[in-house]
Amino acid sequence: MVRAEGSEEFAGLLDCFVMKPSRSFASDNNAVVHPEVMEAIGRANQGHVVGYGDDPYTESAVRKFREHLGSDVEVFFVFNGTAANVLSLQALTRPFHAVLCSEMSHIYTDECGAPERFTGCKLIPLPAPLGKLTLETVTHAYHGIGDQHHVQPKVISITQSTEMGTVYEPAEIKALAQFAHERDMFLHMDGARISNAAAAQGLTLRQATRDLGLDVVSFGGTKNGLMGVEAVVFFRPDLHPSGPKPGPPGAPELARDFLFTRKQGMQLASKMRFLAVQMEALLTNDLWRRNAEHANRMARLLEEEIKKIPQVKIVYAVQANAVFAQIPRPAIKKIQERYFFYPWIEEESVVRWMCSFDTTEEDVRQFVACVKETVEAG
Amino acid sequence: MVRAEGSEEFAGLLDCFVMKPSRSFASDNNAVVHPEVMEAIGRANQGHVVGYGDDPYTESAVRKFREHLGSDVEVFFVFNGTAANVLSLQALTRPFHAVLCSEMSHIYTDECGAPERFTGCKLIPLPAPLGKLTLETVTHAYHGIGDQHHVQPKVISITQSTEMGTVYEPAEIKALAQFAHERDMFLHMDGARISNAAAAQGLTLRQATRDLGLDVVSFGGTKNGLMGVEAVVFFRPDLHPSGPKPGPPGAPELARDFLFTRKQGMQLASKMRFLAVQMEALLTNDLWRRNAEHANRMARLLEEEIKKIPQVKIVYAVQANAVFAQIPRPAIKKIQERYFFYPWIEEESVVRWMCSFDTTEEDVRQFVACVKETVEAG
Amino acid sequence: MVRAEGSEEFAGLLDCFVMKPSRSFASDNNAVVHPEVMEAIGRANQGHVVGYGDDPYTESAVRKFREHLGSDVEVFFVFNGTAANVLSLQALTRPFHAVLCSEMSHIYTDECGAPERFTGCKLIPLPAPLGKLTLETVTHAYHGIGDQHHVQPKVISITQSTEMGTVYEPAEIKALAQFAHERDMFLHMDGARISNAAAAQGLTLRQATRDLGLDVVSFGGTKNGLMGVEAVVFFRPDLHPSGPKPGPPGAPELARDFLFTRKQGMQLASKMRFLAVQMEALLTNDLWRRNAEHANRMARLLEEEIKKIPQVKIVYAVQANAVFAQIPRPAIKKIQERYFFYPWIEEESVVRWMCSFDTTEEDVRQFVACVKETVEAG
Amino acid sequence: MVRAEGSEEFAGLLDCFVMKPSRSFASDNNAVVHPEVMEAIGRANQGHVVGYGDDPYTESAVRKFREHLGSDVEVFFVFNGTAANVLSLQALTRPFHAVLCSEMSHIYTDECGAPERFTGCKLIPLPAPLGKLTLETVTHAYHGIGDQHHVQPKVISITQSTEMGTVYEPAEIKALAQFAHERDMFLHMDGARISNAAAAQGLTLRQATRDLGLDVVSFGGTKNGLMGVEAVVFFRPDLHPSGPKPGPPGAPELARDFLFTRKQGMQLASKMRFLAVQMEALLTNDLWRRNAEHANRMARLLEEEIKKIPQVKIVYAVQANAVFAQIPRPAIKKIQERYFFYPWIEEESVVRWMCSFDTTEEDVRQFVACVKETVEAG
Repeated sequence: MVRAEGSEEFAGLLDCFVMKPSRSFASDNNAVVHPEVMEAIGRANQGHVVGYGDDPYTESAVRKFREHLGSDVEVFFVFNGTAANVLSLQALTRPFHAVLCSEMSHIYTDECGAPERFTGCKLIPLPAPLGKLTLETVTHAYHGIGDQHHVQPKVISITQSTEMGTVYEPAEIKALAQFAHERDMFLHMDGARISNAAAAQGLTLRQATRDLGLDVVSFGGTKNGLMGVEAVVFFRPDLHPSGPKPGPPGAPELARDFLFTRKQGMQLASKMRFLAVQMEALLTNDLWRRNAEHANRMARLLEEEIKKIPQVKIVYAVQANAVFAQIPRPAIKKIQERYFFYPWIEEESVVRWMCSFDTTEEDVRQFVACVKETVEAG
Repeated sequence: MVRAEGSEEFAGLLDCFVMKPSRSFASDNNAVVHPEVMEAIGRANQGHVVGYGDDPYTESAVRKFREHLGSDVEVFFVFNGTAANVLSLQALTRPFHAVLCSEMSHIYTDECGAPERFTGCKLIPLPAPLGKLTLETVTHAYHGIGDQHHVQPKVISITQSTEMGTVYEPAEIKALAQFAHERDMFLHMDGARISNAAAAQGLTLRQATRDLGLDVVSFGGTKNGLMGVEAVVFFRPDLHPSGPKPGPPGAPELARDFLFTRKQGMQLASKMRFLAVQMEALLTNDLWRRNAEHANRMARLLEEEIKKIPQVKIVYAVQANAVFAQIPRPAIKKIQERYFFYPWIEEESVVRWMCSFDTTEEDVRQFVACVKETVEAG
Repeated sequence: MVRAEGSEEFAGLLDCFVMKPSRSFASDNNAVVHPEVMEAIGRANQGHVVGYGDDPYTESAVRKFREHLGSDVEVFFVFNGTAANVLSLQALTRPFHAVLCSEMSHIYTDECGAPERFTGCKLIPLPAPLGKLTLETVTHAYHGIGDQHHVQPKVISITQSTEMGTVYEPAEIKALAQFAHERDMFLHMDGARISNAAAAQGLTLRQATRDLGLDVVSFGGTKNGLMGVEAVVFFRPDLHPSGPKPGPPGAPELARDFLFTRKQGMQLASKMRFLAVQMEALLTNDLWRRNAEHANRMARLLEEEIKKIPQVKIVYAVQANAVFAQIPRPAIKKIQERYFFYPWIEEESVVRWMCSFDTTEEDVRQFVACVKETVEAG
Repeated sequence: MVRAEGSEEFAGLLDCFVMKPSRSFASDNNAVVHPEVMEAIGRANQGHVVGYGDDPYTESAVRKFREHLGSDVEVFFVFNGTAANVLSLQALTRPFHAVLCSEMSHIYTDECGAPERFTGCKLIPLPAPLGKLTLETVTHAYHGIGDQHHVQPKVISITQSTEMGTVYEPAEIKALAQFAHERDMFLHMDGARISNAAAAQGLTLRQATRDLGLDVVSFGGTKNGLMGVEAVVFFRPDLHPSGPKPGPPGAPELARDFLFTRKQGMQLASKMRFLAVQMEALLTNDLWRRNAEHANRMARLLEEEIKKIPQVKIVYAVQANAVFAQIPRPAIKKIQERYFFYPWIEEESVVRWMCSFDTTEEDVRQFVACVKETVEAG
């Protein structure tokens, strides 16, 4: 990063600017790959196996998912979170449908329009002060049903943990699931950080997803120590109006078609084994929980330490691995000279700091020292 | 693989069935990741770097591409070959355009309709007996220009080496490029196996692509020893009708928009460094050529050895790393009990065998022995 | 039309060039609107009615369709044939599906890629020497089922009468319907000229469509004397896997969603009454049959008279209102100076002549005289 | 319409319920076709002409547009307003672009998602208290430029007269045009009621569109007395970065491609003459202005008369042909028993009343009497 003009002498004033840190608080996807995951990749690197998912590594990873989430779930690996979300929504909709989501949700603000482009659906942005949809907001947005001029709401999509670092309570999700199913709608979860949420609430992965009534989850891996893979998990894969399991009328047979939706969606890996083993490692020996708990703990530590700086204000409840802080505007740029991170609400000088599985206590303390020194230096 | 009924005693008859081979001839994507690539991935696994491509590893990999292909090329990494092809075509077209391609091309037959779905364009399948488009066939297909009822040809897409294991001569590609550019069209190459072609002809990567007049190439990596990454390379990134460089009128500013096309196309990796270092390794110390030459050599060896079996006929010229053979129908299933591979033209009992960078001479000899024994056993 | 150079004196030689005819043989859509239709439009032009189809005129027109085709059909009016076909296919498919059709079909060659663009599906062009798909050709094309790399055939689309002026026999359609339904596929008919076909075979509209096992028909009006309206008719509107009526598993509830598909497809007329009354007029007092029979009769007359010219050859059986003729190449341009019409196979100097409801015997005789004189003049 | 229970005796109390009126205030598209337009259609109904727009009627109608708007405009007729808007936006964008529009705009709320579906773009809904975008709101929404995660704003779309019956001042539009062009963006107008706006401000059509800096307008006809046709008008049809005319870099050659965009968009009429003559009639002898002025005058009369009822409040300035009124909730349903019209903001009991070219003073007085009686009856 280029030093700002005149920062030379400024840097001299602050101890924290002595050397460049190796870890930032910009995003949990700036982290490395966990050693157990690297090892799993290495182990898989021998001999030929058939491509495109018809190999024993993939079979084993899917089996692992079924141990955690139920023997009847269907699991598909894709390359990234954009795809997990977009293809999940594609599986649930036809182009005249609408997806209700938070106006701050990643699918609405940060996918360069991929959901609309690929599904053809409109995304309806709803106010969500703490990143959470509520019964009240989705009820307000549920209108125009049967009116040919209006898109038809078909999916509620929530993010867990949310884009604001908060975590839906189980009862909140259950209520949204019930609302959806009573109206022939589906409930989808962008679970890019589902592990952080489950870990924060002391739930198993099943308790944090399937048991709450979700239909489909984008199960995150990359932000929790993997190299790059996400899973689309269908909890009711054979969902169909008059089928053996209860489900919204008109629902497609979800999992049956997803093989094609994934391939057409440009998300079928030829050397699938190297995606599968990452996920298997994550679900083995509770790596998902170990990583997530650590990141969450670092965020709490960061919150506690930051709270000691009177000029800085924590703006949302720290419930997972994210900390949002309002800091004096002049300090932001100065801290960014040393630590890369993103603004959240520019006008209000609110910034976002993420902890990851490889964040250390030392990282936190150095960073807080830097913030403190900078803020105090005015 | 489950043994077919009664195969027990059959296996006893054939020496080649004693133990399961660790490598097959099904596809070059069934291979492992080359050790130099694994090492590069490992080296990149330290410290935090910014996501989505704004990191030094990606910068370095792009620089490497520019050393090989020219300092002004623009390079974008994507997850797989489907995406490299589809997004290349998307960059070159608007939805009422058409893409001229071989009826045997991968984009026409094996992408589950992804090109049509994402670009909106029609793909016009042209006869190509040896996998190659010719001036004659594209001329025949170039019609309906300006007629509002007809899609408008805008791209010629060729595959190098072809789906049939043949390799376009430089002059053949130059002629197609000239044809395209004289008609305000573009020439795209599906270069999933461009390294095999360049190696086969003793060309540099630049001589095998840019110097032939190509506009965009899907530069393959996964089939040549990488874990999973392909590159979209724009040779005339600022291409624009009245711009500083000559180009077909009406062309979009190709590279400028591709950042968005890739993201919206669900192909932006968050931990991009792990894609970039694979490509950098491939372009370092001629790994691309070493791998490709080896695979090509194994294919030639396979061809030579197979030719000694009178009941088996090589059907296309072996010019890269693929061997297509017509073998007595009953033998196919039996060999497949031991070696997985794909049929090519089922009705004519033609099959496809691919060699890869990790194929050994021993692999070839064992396989040929198996084919020979099986065929002779009748 | 501008006279070709030197045509002055040429024209002087031929009697038929004395005055410009008011009717050509280019297309049945070059014709006027039938007086009974104009009258119906005039009658509807009084007072306010609610827009978008919720008016008594539309209700009445739909009732008329049900009288002809069965009380349970669902009918939707759209502006043109492109839309009727594209939206019918959209209703029947998801984007990874494929549509099997003749390589000469209008949907494949003349819609500027609209079907692919709007449905996302691939259209598979099949050889059809006389414009007709056969059990043999669709069987050959039905492959790759369940293979994620391949689009999945879901619809067979036929044109009646065909683009070559031939007419499917009822048994031929029934066989295709059975083939489709046995494989969870649908049978769609592009019925732009269904009236001509039904009239030619002496069938009722019901006998010519529903009774043959069709799922959806694009019911043509514009080419049979209307100003501009087509209907999408669903014969099994509540089609659903486990629903009360037998149907292919996985089928969407066709008609339920079509309201939205039409609106999103930009095909919902605000002043719908003026579309509806055209269709009602067509179905009243057998106007559909009177118009179609007349056009067919004129085509037969044209065929008979043309056959008397030895230099001209009729190339396809004349079974509806189209005549395809092979004529000496130099004559084509000369005749076109006076009569506008389209080439069909340029290389073979085959041209297409269409008769319409307003073609007169005198028109035919004058035209044949012109052809005869021109051909004989060499 | 079914009488509500118990309405029998209620109706007896109110004079206005004696007989069903022939005209409502629901929408200007509930009106008939103007006699001069019907006459023009009738005149065009003779002899054959070539289909798809290559006919003298279309040529003449385009010439008429050029007389009004400038000799270099390009004009394309389409079936309805949805298509005019969607295809205009399609011409101006690539799928990763965004369209800035009012959150109350027709394209955002009433097209069943057609703009997103067909263009692939995201529509960004902006607050617009009186239906108008302002420099302030578009400035606020113009962000994320160059950020690959964000859609890129490319078009500002305004509606004139607005969905709330207000009319942009010329200076307001000029400012938006300047804002757009300074940022390589386009300004599009949904001119479904452009005639009402121009008439209200005493401007020519050119002064009300082209002279304000618009790039493309959806020129409305159906709501101003036509049977069903809208025009897409390109004011800078050869717009291109480095071309002879100044224009935003990266702009496509707008009109050149629109022939294909329209056909692929299912909006090419085969019997085009019947669309063209409607538009020609509208632009002849100032029919556009006569119709619009009358409708506007009726709206002003309605406003004046309604204002005399103390319980009813006019909520937006009446500047064109729409009147929005807040009336006691119980009265709404009762008035709707006799006059069909739409609620606007249900929660605030605001309703919309539209006047059209065929609204009479008597219609207005009867309607106001009905409102007055109903409201007073409590």
